[in-house]
Amino acid sequence: MKNFADRLLKEITKMENPSCIGLDPRIEDIPDFIKKQSQKKDSKTKNAIAWSFFIFNKMIIDATFDIVPAYKLQIAFYEKYGSEGIKALEKTINYLKKKSKIIFVDAKRNDIGPTAEAYSTAFLSPAGFDVDALTVNPYLGIDGVKPFIDDAIKYGKGIFVLVKTSNPSSGDFQDRILENKERLYEAVGKMVQKWTKRTEGKRGYGVVGAVVGATYPQQAKVLRKIMPKSIILVPGYGAQGGGAIGAALNFNNDGRGAIVHSARGIIFAWKQKPYKDNFKPKDFHLAAREAALAMKKDLLEALRSR
Amino acid sequence: MKNFADRLLKEITKMENPSCIGLDPRIEDIPDFIKKQSQKKDSKTKNAIAWSFFIFNKMIIDATFDIVPAYKLQIAFYEKYGSEGIKALEKTINYLKKKSKIIFVDAKRNDIGPTAEAYSTAFLSPAGFDVDALTVNPYLGIDGVKPFIDDAIKYGKGIFVLVKTSNPSSGDFQDRILENKERLYEAVGKMVQKWTKRTEGKRGYGVVGAVVGATYPQQAKVLRKIMPKSIILVPGYGAQGGGAIGAALNFNNDGRGAIVHSARGIIFAWKQKPYKDNFKPKDFHLAAREAALAMKKDLLEALRSR
Repeated sequence: MKNFADRLLKEITKMENPSCIGLDPRIEDIPDFIKKQSQKKDSKTKNAIAWSFFIFNKMIIDATFDIVPAYKLQIAFYEKYGSEGIKALEKTINYLKKKSKIIFVDAKRNDIGPTAEAYSTAFLSPAGFDVDALTVNPYLGIDGVKPFIDDAIKYGKGIFVLVKTSNPSSGDFQDRILENKERLYEAVGKMVQKWTKRTEGKRGYGVVGAVVGATYPQQAKVLRKIMPKSIILVPGYGAQGGGAIGAALNFNNDGRGAIVHSARGIIFAWKQKPYKDNFKPKDFHLAAREAALAMKKDLLEALRSR
Repeated sequence: MKNFADRLLKEITKMENPSCIGLDPRIEDIPDFIKKQSQKKDSKTKNAIAWSFFIFNKMIIDATFDIVPAYKLQIAFYEKYGSEGIKALEKTINYLKKKSKIIFVDAKRNDIGPTAEAYSTAFLSPAGFDVDALTVNPYLGIDGVKPFIDDAIKYGKGIFVLVKTSNPSSGDFQDRILENKERLYEAVGKMVQKWTKRTEGKRGYGVVGAVVGATYPQQAKVLRKIMPKSIILVPGYGAQGGGAIGAALNFNNDGRGAIVHSARGIIFAWKQKPYKDNFKPKDFHLAAREAALAMKKDLLEALRSR
């Protein structure tokens, strides 16, 4: 079983693109022609939405799979529509597998040991969704995280542990100063570094990665040093206000070790400046490709000019 | 819309039973006769498992709904089987609604604001699973929790925020001492107390509850004082080693304000002492009833003898 970190870094190098696209569909932002097509396939509301999601995702994938190494699916947008929504997630995952892309599911799962095992089976095992990596919330401590690490090693997969999230109030608990003067996110980062050790592949990175928001560049600098062996998944670029220069601080000095994520800024580019004047709704996927290429360029420039 | 805390406390009083049953099915622990019945209904493996779960849950519910106020579904055990598993969850939820029982989903969801909104819609809104309460992980701070609180107020629902979890390593981060000498779980408890204020119903409790494990009685005492207005959901009783006396510390002095949860110790009682010698597999649901009654008695005695 090939090491996940090696696989991911190989794909990033092959594409010369350290970014991934978030397939986080919202029915209100999907072009009407797709919604009409879906209603013909199934008149039940939730099934029609699930069809819309799959058709939308498929068109985005077809328009971008040759330029990005990985896709991230935020499960909340699918779970919103119950079992029908989860079916759309499954279909999208299967389509991405056909295209041999790396698949992250952003589910931030967390629970006590035996229950974490069930989640881990759900996402990382061949019996479940069988995706390449999952985001995990560390609040329950090591016995809630270990089942995921064990499966990551067993099945050649990876996890990304929430360390410093991109949202405005992430500091409420993550920034709390501990008795020893370090911040909670530093303590979590140290655990991640400990957990990722001895899972390293040929390229020097382990399979326990970290989530560090592009919106917190100062914390990114500190955390990059604490976790030199972890691949950092960087949300918050674009729609959430994080820039390429801030995101670049999550990379090691050799320009490796991180992958930057954007969802809304790519998949709904057709509704946003500067794309909305140049693309018709039916060409939303082409706008997504343009936005993905612009993001790649933006990141590579920021990495070069450090 | 009636206040969730009022609804829950009313049901607890009506049943004279401050406990809830966890419907956390595991295929390996389900009696063979149910598995055979399910395979006849659908030969596809995941569909057959989903049928087994529903039949198993339904029999447990039919045997216990007149003695317990609430049921808690741990979604991991359903998600393990993808969209088919989620369908079994949906069917169980619908069955519990017919029986007018209070339904908690233990999903420990957490994300940044706009994504937390999607999760909240999924679980708490009439457009989603529409259950009564959801467990929420606080690591992302208030803007990841607020969407759930808003919906709880809007739809007459509740949330239970993880404060001190029942697992052995919950102290890894939750017990860390902060600069001001308080523990992280105390800081989270103070936030919960702040969040639940102004959501109080007629019985004096708010709709933002807390999860505090029965396995940590000392912490329970502290947290009960910090969060006088929160209903505490207490996992860890029974299979995880928490006793009734420890669990009782989560209640206020009037014997109110908490609900104790058990899953494995009830639903798989037929495989465990002292029930396994007296119940055949086909009577697993009757063993569950006995175990639920024993738990009720145990808790009421512990509450009386404080």
